[in-house]
Amino acid sequence: MDRALELARRGPAHGPNPRVGCVLLAGAAPDGVPGGAPDGAPARVLGEGYHRGAGTPHAEVAALADAAARGHDVRGATAVVTLEPCAHTGRTGPCAHALAEAGVAHVVHALDDPNPAAAGGAAVLRARGVRVTGGVRAAEAGELLRVWATAAGRGTPYVTLKTATSLDGRVAAADGTSRWITGPQARAHAHAVRAEVDAVAVTTGTVLADDPALTARRPDGSLAEHQPLRLVVGRRDVPGGARLRGPGGPLVHVRSHAVADLLAAAAAHEVRHLLVEGGPAFAAALLAAGAVDELHAYLAPVVLGAGPAAVGDLGVTTLAAAPRLRTARVERLGDDVLLVARRDPAPPPAAAPTEGDS
Amino acid sequence: MDRALELARRGPAHGPNPRVGCVLLAGAAPDGVPGGAPDGAPARVLGEGYHRGAGTPHAEVAALADAAARGHDVRGATAVVTLEPCAHTGRTGPCAHALAEAGVAHVVHALDDPNPAAAGGAAVLRARGVRVTGGVRAAEAGELLRVWATAAGRGTPYVTLKTATSLDGRVAAADGTSRWITGPQARAHAHAVRAEVDAVAVTTGTVLADDPALTARRPDGSLAEHQPLRLVVGRRDVPGGARLRGPGGPLVHVRSHAVADLLAAAAAHEVRHLLVEGGPAFAAALLAAGAVDELHAYLAPVVLGAGPAAVGDLGVTTLAAAPRLRTARVERLGDDVLLVARRDPAPPPAAAPTEGDS
Repeated sequence: MDRALELARRGPAHGPNPRVGCVLLAGAAPDGVPGGAPDGAPARVLGEGYHRGAGTPHAEVAALADAAARGHDVRGATAVVTLEPCAHTGRTGPCAHALAEAGVAHVVHALDDPNPAAAGGAAVLRARGVRVTGGVRAAEAGELLRVWATAAGRGTPYVTLKTATSLDGRVAAADGTSRWITGPQARAHAHAVRAEVDAVAVTTGTVLADDPALTARRPDGSLAEHQPLRLVVGRRDVPGGARLRGPGGPLVHVRSHAVADLLAAAAAHEVRHLLVEGGPAFAAALLAAGAVDELHAYLAPVVLGAGPAAVGDLGVTTLAAAPRLRTARVERLGDDVLLVARRDPAPPPAAAPTEGDS
Repeated sequence: MDRALELARRGPAHGPNPRVGCVLLAGAAPDGVPGGAPDGAPARVLGEGYHRGAGTPHAEVAALADAAARGHDVRGATAVVTLEPCAHTGRTGPCAHALAEAGVAHVVHALDDPNPAAAGGAAVLRARGVRVTGGVRAAEAGELLRVWATAAGRGTPYVTLKTATSLDGRVAAADGTSRWITGPQARAHAHAVRAEVDAVAVTTGTVLADDPALTARRPDGSLAEHQPLRLVVGRRDVPGGARLRGPGGPLVHVRSHAVADLLAAAAAHEVRHLLVEGGPAFAAALLAAGAVDELHAYLAPVVLGAGPAAVGDLGVTTLAAAPRLRTARVERLGDDVLLVARRDPAPPPAAAPTEGDS
């Protein structure tokens, strides 16, 4: 499973599909958890694969193709895969059938598929006489697939709210000067995040005030390979000369300020991970609606005392009613600090491997 | 010098005097930097000492007493000390004379004494025929003595401003509820800091609004051994029943809001390290005056959107005019984060050891 997780990480973080890795091992696993032959020697690898993004083969199919290219027979083999093989036909065929068809005897997977449209692979495999063990290293796979699994299970994007502020939450000084509150390392990090998400959203107010390009750029200023969809929320028009209309991802204008409308529009564009970068009233609406899964707070060691805030009035009047997040990670970026906080209180429990229905 | 620095750290962080350690080694150092006999063997330790706080012997005198107690003759010895031996008579006699009197042949020190009243020890020693080498491991000693050296060199306390806020700089929700924005680990850390400083200051506004005790407490709620002086700034009276008047450090009321008046009052009470905990207008005045040496920003992963701020309007209207600090340290405390930022841009340069006048 270590190798399968390693393979999975090679896939792109963005896109509608999960990052999945698969390793085909010779023979059936002795005790439900493969990783070696009965005598303790490592199992022989017949083939391996990972998913490279929508429209390309799933990890299991890639691993079967790899085994075939190597001239290996996979009949009676064990497939170790980071996510329950899918049971539906999307852009590619169902993996559960492909594995059964190839004669694989045992499938060991980490995470159960949270996507209602694709789940049921374990049942399909069992019905065809394949042994299935689920929940192996589910915590690691869950962390890798957290964003995708949250979005796929819920049908709306995983929302990350980004703020870049002084230590007192100001995005700019009183005169509006804001370039730059945070330093080059924080800005480079924020661009790297844009290159990993499916879409970036701002309000028309932010477009009119700041004219952001919302592109993912490398430190040298060039455009990253993947550019997120650019979502604008609000009723006002995006000016013809806006930088948003320049090179970068496609522009989608959602003519509403309702959180639900943004999420629905994003989901319709197959957005799994949505990064919201402003403005303050919309950030407050998202937080108040409980729609923020993750907060990226970039904090610069400066205190302004006055100036516009990153987040507007939430309608929270008492401390106990404030939406609490849990700190997941703290990262130093030059003189700045990135605090990553999440709504989920804890990582998914490391469930014991199960042989039963999952 | 490693051992001398280790000894120095045993002394108390609070108090008017610096933390200093001293080791007496047999014989003169071969090349100006001791640490071994000419054949490479470690030098024999004749005695060692450190300063335990005002009114007790200085490190050098403690080391001489230790050598005497062990029955060692220190004539011709090398004294390794973290700070230039003092040349003045305060509560104790001048160390430079004591070392020369005892027959020490060579003094190796890290930091030159920044205190105008006590400096000149190296010159006194040289005048009496003692070899003096300064600047050895000055960077480490400078870090250990940063607070004291800043205060002693300037004649006013080293000022640490503490804030405990939401990610948007709020100390409380709109209704004033503030217990607790930060969690138990952050609060315990803040109490440990109080136990290391000489004084804690708040405004009368904070006294009237929050009725703080300003004591240093252990996690079990008991009072720490050292209690900081409690300084209140502002013209209003401290109510008779205020918790500030309860068990804890002495209470000093500075009936002014002027930053200079607070600093002068603190200096008059031999305060080297002053921790300012509120309120917002006074914090802003300190920052605007450039009087904040260090900022302790405790940040909780919560966004309030509204509510009172930790720092009031600084009069900063444009970003370039904002007082910038440098991040010295970022510490995770449970779900909270402590960002320690300082005004000084860099640690003191690690000066090469000098034999000349320093």
